[in-house]
Amino acid sequence: MYYVFFTGTAGSGKTTAVKEFRDYLLDQEMDVAVVNMDPAVETLPYTPDFDVRDYVDAREVMERFGLGPNSSLIVSIDLLLTKATDIKREVGEIESNYVLVDTPGQVELFAYRDTGRTFSSLLVGDSKSVNVFLMDSFIAREARSYVSLLLLSSSIRFKLGIPQVNVLSKVDLISDKELEKLLAWGEGEDLLDSLGVVDDYSFELVRTLIESLEVPPIPLSSTNREGFDKLYAEIQRILAGGEDFVTEENNSRL
Amino acid sequence: MYYVFFTGTAGSGKTTAVKEFRDYLLDQEMDVAVVNMDPAVETLPYTPDFDVRDYVDAREVMERFGLGPNSSLIVSIDLLLTKATDIKREVGEIESNYVLVDTPGQVELFAYRDTGRTFSSLLVGDSKSVNVFLMDSFIAREARSYVSLLLLSSSIRFKLGIPQVNVLSKVDLISDKELEKLLAWGEGEDLLDSLGVVDDYSFELVRTLIESLEVPPIPLSSTNREGFDKLYAEIQRILAGGEDFVTEENNSRL
Repeated sequence: MYYVFFTGTAGSGKTTAVKEFRDYLLDQEMDVAVVNMDPAVETLPYTPDFDVRDYVDAREVMERFGLGPNSSLIVSIDLLLTKATDIKREVGEIESNYVLVDTPGQVELFAYRDTGRTFSSLLVGDSKSVNVFLMDSFIAREARSYVSLLLLSSSIRFKLGIPQVNVLSKVDLISDKELEKLLAWGEGEDLLDSLGVVDDYSFELVRTLIESLEVPPIPLSSTNREGFDKLYAEIQRILAGGEDFVTEENNSRL
Repeated sequence: MYYVFFTGTAGSGKTTAVKEFRDYLLDQEMDVAVVNMDPAVETLPYTPDFDVRDYVDAREVMERFGLGPNSSLIVSIDLLLTKATDIKREVGEIESNYVLVDTPGQVELFAYRDTGRTFSSLLVGDSKSVNVFLMDSFIAREARSYVSLLLLSSSIRFKLGIPQVNVLSKVDLISDKELEKLLAWGEGEDLLDSLGVVDDYSFELVRTLIESLEVPPIPLSSTNREGFDKLYAEIQRILAGGEDFVTEENNSRL
């Protein structure tokens, strides 16, 4: 069983991408299930095979504990851990080849609180997993924001410690010319020029960041399925090839 | 007038740091005001000179529009822009030398949505500003999380485009030995070793990230005011010295 997490900032299109990627896999007669891990999502465009809201629902948490919207989100995520054994058992009954995991709306709650990572590790167990990080292409059109999202992506890769694929989501919302620019940046072209004037430290950081991109962000549209073949191939490459964030061959360097 | 923003992930101690830093400045007979920019905060330990909740309150937004906790946070932040002119005028009446700005609980809502940045630029106008980024030292104790938070810090620096000071918040919660380790990492010592085995790309990225730290994260405790002198000195250095994220002298390099 392979777990494919979908992460990204609020509004980057995780839930829609999960739905469309599931449909894409089903169309190819693949065996796929979907897990919703967001206790605060209001409506889902798909019927999840497992829904974390059956255990913890942010709206209920808010009412029951008299919390405000912000606290209720944090408490809901933390409450998940107390239900982890039951959730693990129920998810364990899923027998699909691929399990797509839709994560909480705000990536911060999932990635930077220990609960999110602990919960995911528990869920995945010994199975292989990959994290699809969605960079909203509408936001990424600006060079500074593009770099900012790449840095956020690296930050999350370090925090979660699993292999990661970057995608540029919602490319149907930007012009061909803007897309061309984003693709060039992904190949390491023109990004430093587009940034304008930055200090020495930032200059070096961006240069290394670009060099560290083994695979450029994949342009993706959940509207017309642009990039889905490429995303699937990349996920396959990582899962099948045994690529890991931690590699033994580097051991000698450190 | 100088604006000092306090940002950091949910639970990193922004609000408490704002309160204590205000009191610290007041004790030294400085002229300081506090602005609360979080529409979703439930209680504040200080009385703000300006409170954004007078214009937009996340709990009210939730009830009025029938939204869930997650949507109400996003909508509240976006609604701020519609009130920007009035807010700007009211904040403009503050005549303190320093204005400390307490930002939304989740840094993502402030930094990665255009509203947050647009709103802050509008607020600051031509004045100088600096962003104090809080790295929760309890989370940063683990090498991978430390790197992850530094990357997040860089991400936010690029996104906001203003000079930034990193602090290790809540150091009273960690042991002396842990603090010693964090300080060594900030000086570029032992971090790569502590990370264990990582791939080549990550290795280079971390090395550059460490080198790009002009000033190591300042250990801070809002409980015993450890690090407050140092933080104040660093803010002064940046604001008075005219250091800017964008420097003219680099122009020729690009």
